[in-house]
Amino acid sequence: MEVEVKFKAYDGVENRIKQIAEFVIEKLEEDLYFNHPCRDFKESDEALRVRKDKEGIKVTYKGAKVDKETKSREEIKLKVDDYNKAIKLFEKLGFKAVREVVKLRKIYRIGDAIICYDKVKGLGKFVEIEIEIEGKANFEIAKQKVFEIAKQLGFDSKNSIRKSYLELLEEKNRV
Amino acid sequence: MEVEVKFKAYDGVENRIKQIAEFVIEKLEEDLYFNHPCRDFKESDEALRVRKDKEGIKVTYKGAKVDKETKSREEIKLKVDDYNKAIKLFEKLGFKAVREVVKLRKIYRIGDAIICYDKVKGLGKFVEIEIEIEGKANFEIAKQKVFEIAKQLGFDSKNSIRKSYLELLEEKNRV
Repeated sequence: MEVEVKFKAYDGVENRIKQIAEFVIEKLEEDLYFNHPCRDFKESDEALRVRKDKEGIKVTYKGAKVDKETKSREEIKLKVDDYNKAIKLFEKLGFKAVREVVKLRKIYRIGDAIICYDKVKGLGKFVEIEIEIEGKANFEIAKQKVFEIAKQLGFDSKNSIRKSYLELLEEKNRV
Repeated sequence: MEVEVKFKAYDGVENRIKQIAEFVIEKLEEDLYFNHPCRDFKESDEALRVRKDKEGIKVTYKGAKVDKETKSREEIKLKVDDYNKAIKLFEKLGFKAVREVVKLRKIYRIGDAIICYDKVKGLGKFVEIEIEIEGKANFEIAKQKVFEIAKQLGFDSKNSIRKSYLELLEEKNRV
């Protein structure tokens, strides 16, 4: 389970991140999102993607969001050995590639939380704060923590963006 | 693409395999087969499985058989890092685990062909002869080769079994 909040970045936010958190890695993440052969992920609020970055290739399933204030959701991540084969396998199973999401991500760590400073192609800059938890037992504590970090970075929890980059890009391209 | 024939083993066949081919590896293969959330793989003649053996974990998609004499079909194999996560990911996507197929497989190599001597739990002993090819260009040549090897092992191409172990087990359990 990934407890996660997202905010639109403001000028200078990266310096504030650097003051409280430790830099881990910078990477270009190229994600390809799929829709399901017989249910609409837009309606079910799920997602399936294949990600390629310099650390490897991952297939990720995301469940529906679990609360109203954050974008927290169940995640199942599977490392795989081949990007094109992963895409082909899901296409053969009837999944339809719907959109690519490409971003330059800088990852910072503070305790058990991760802060991502993202430059998303076609969307702009965002900050995501997330904590991975096992099961749902520590959900409220983790949620408090990510909002506390958000506050430290000058974000108001009211401005938390619950939409995924995929949804934001779909919205932008619909207009 | 996997060009493949299968025969019921007879007593002594393994000795004949050893005379013409080189032993590669023996392993216990534990396969879990899934059905699709919105099409019946029994009807479409496709398959999706997660395999666990001592070499690792693999997700494999198999397309419909492409001819009437062999069990040749397209295969997409993806190495993954976690057996339980792979199963959970497909279950979350609506795939239903239908049956486990467990076998002790001894693999032999002869040129670009593989001979498998399989002891399948609940079914008995079988021999599979297969050649992997890229695309369909060399299909007929590969098919001739696998039947040639089958002949060397004393099998008559008329007795080629086109059903998968999954199908044979389903059949047996239906009776």
